[in-house]
Amino acid sequence: MHTVESKSTTVTELRCLLQQAQTRISELATLQEITLSLGQHIDNVTLVLRRIIEAAAETLQAEASALLLVDEETGELVFDRVHKGGGNDLRQHRLAPSEGIAGWVATHGEPLIVNDVAQETRFASRIDDETGFHTRSILCAPLWARGRVIGVLEVLNRRDGQPFDEDNLRLTQAFCASAAIALDNARLYRAVYQGGLDTMKALAAAIDAKDPYTRGHSDRVTRYSLQIAHHLELDTRDLDTVMYAAILHDVGKIGIDEQILRKPGLLTPAEQAIMAHHPVIGATIVEGVSFLRESQPCIRHHHEWYDGRGYPDQLCGKAIPLGARIITVADAFDAMSTDRPYRAALPPAQAMTELEHCAGQTFDPAIVDIFVKQVHEARAET
Amino acid sequence: MHTVESKSTTVTELRCLLQQAQTRISELATLQEITLSLGQHIDNVTLVLRRIIEAAAETLQAEASALLLVDEETGELVFDRVHKGGGNDLRQHRLAPSEGIAGWVATHGEPLIVNDVAQETRFASRIDDETGFHTRSILCAPLWARGRVIGVLEVLNRRDGQPFDEDNLRLTQAFCASAAIALDNARLYRAVYQGGLDTMKALAAAIDAKDPYTRGHSDRVTRYSLQIAHHLELDTRDLDTVMYAAILHDVGKIGIDEQILRKPGLLTPAEQAIMAHHPVIGATIVEGVSFLRESQPCIRHHHEWYDGRGYPDQLCGKAIPLGARIITVADAFDAMSTDRPYRAALPPAQAMTELEHCAGQTFDPAIVDIFVKQVHEARAET
Repeated sequence: MHTVESKSTTVTELRCLLQQAQTRISELATLQEITLSLGQHIDNVTLVLRRIIEAAAETLQAEASALLLVDEETGELVFDRVHKGGGNDLRQHRLAPSEGIAGWVATHGEPLIVNDVAQETRFASRIDDETGFHTRSILCAPLWARGRVIGVLEVLNRRDGQPFDEDNLRLTQAFCASAAIALDNARLYRAVYQGGLDTMKALAAAIDAKDPYTRGHSDRVTRYSLQIAHHLELDTRDLDTVMYAAILHDVGKIGIDEQILRKPGLLTPAEQAIMAHHPVIGATIVEGVSFLRESQPCIRHHHEWYDGRGYPDQLCGKAIPLGARIITVADAFDAMSTDRPYRAALPPAQAMTELEHCAGQTFDPAIVDIFVKQVHEARAET
Repeated sequence: MHTVESKSTTVTELRCLLQQAQTRISELATLQEITLSLGQHIDNVTLVLRRIIEAAAETLQAEASALLLVDEETGELVFDRVHKGGGNDLRQHRLAPSEGIAGWVATHGEPLIVNDVAQETRFASRIDDETGFHTRSILCAPLWARGRVIGVLEVLNRRDGQPFDEDNLRLTQAFCASAAIALDNARLYRAVYQGGLDTMKALAAAIDAKDPYTRGHSDRVTRYSLQIAHHLELDTRDLDTVMYAAILHDVGKIGIDEQILRKPGLLTPAEQAIMAHHPVIGATIVEGVSFLRESQPCIRHHHEWYDGRGYPDQLCGKAIPLGARIITVADAFDAMSTDRPYRAALPPAQAMTELEHCAGQTFDPAIVDIFVKQVHEARAET
């Protein structure tokens, strides 16, 4: 907006300029609020994107708005979220590559204003047919991230019946920039988080594979442990602590001789003593990793018994870290319900009876209680 | 800014309101530009922070500005970056907890305007004494992240001699919010990235430890490989690929029997054949990890020879991935320059002669060339 003021400017003209300036201030303030909210929810991009499409519709006084993301594999545009106009029924609906105005904008990487879709051959009317929404005008702009179009933002039907103009477009492009940043940051964060986790899991699986009887063990123990932890309503940070510890609980077996790990029979007392080192070795392996500082005690203590007769430190009751008490139950259940060199798998019902029998001695009874209920519910559902 | 307009508003008053509105638009546009730049450099927070303190000084028409961060261990405030006024000489200078106006703001979590520091007992004059800058007035506001003060932003001496006012303060607080988000995002990203890396390294070290002769091997191979990769000016992504592959190049040894790994003598041909599986096992372990997709071939091929006589696939010359060719040289140098069961370590000079001797056969001659120069330079420096 350019406000060139000449000497002959009248009061009316000044009022008009002032009004325009105030509108612009209000728009920029909304943008400012949104861009600031971007960073506050780096791991919850949903909130930010919802706020962006709402604000785009409100600021442009439009009837509806929608965010569509490019499916990298197919090149289709997928409705990610919709504000009014067809509402969430459209979520996950897909446009073929280059289909409609959104498709054109994504393919060409350029914005487009169409103030009368009836006159526009690029318009794809089938979405209106599906939702019952009547599109009259569209303003659509691309989301760019790292040199590629990752989606489009579209705003539909100005409420006052006026055409969309260049000011509207500039504002929408700013919203697009915000949305692209939020998405790109969230993807980057997610990729790095998931990458670390996948690597950890792959290495844990390789350690499991040293002992043919424990294939998939760490994976299952992690799943059971997270079920219990979710029931206890642990916060995200504590859930992560339990998850890392569960994935890595047997990492100390790297240091145990394969002759013992693979022995097809019961271990001698001397061999048992060596085997019993694995929680300590595991804790030592992760010792210097500050990222795993809180998981480390759960690894060290996942063979403690609730009555204090476990190892390595004979901790007792609530002195055993909660994460370790959770993993102990998950670990024992998986050990009982899979084949071992010296016996076949117990049926799940019998494994659970065994857990209940040892509650208060080997296991925290509250955790056995939660887990047994979960297994029963899961079995009732199938 | 409230612009209540009455019927009696004159042209002069309107012009004044318009001027204020235009100033506000310009301020908000600057803020908008900065908040958008936050996300574009999630892994390069330095750029964003520099832009924030420059913009804070410019927008408030101040002589200088500075960002100070709380040292979590000591509670001190550390000058992180300074715009004019003492310049970068101040970097890493420290204020004791609660020292000066910045310390007061950090401790109380509240902003402060002091328009005449000569009258202010909280002012710490020693920084001016050190820099020769003459502070007359200060506007200082805290950076909040996750419920804690992580630093303060201070703006010094309005150029027009006017006092700092509430509008200046609101704007500075918006800059503080941006800076806090940039810092917090960068820390979160860094923590997750570093966490994954540290875990990977800890597990690699544990695998090294299976064989007492290779303690620290993965660490050193990673260091040498990154030296070479930096010289080749690989981009960040390729550097990460080489780094992950170097850390994990021997991960397949998880699957090799310790009797062979620890054998105190030369291996028989049959044992050598088993040992030669480790690059393939390693590649299989990381197969499902999309994060390691590009590192995987470097793991698989780190024992190929430049003349095609290596294993497992007898790749030749440039058909061997660059990362693998780098790791081969680093790996061989470390193997030669540390003790082995069947021989003592070679002196570095002899290990390098050996590398040069095998350049073009075992090794990519260009990479041997780079590495040998680097080792010579490092030895010349010490």
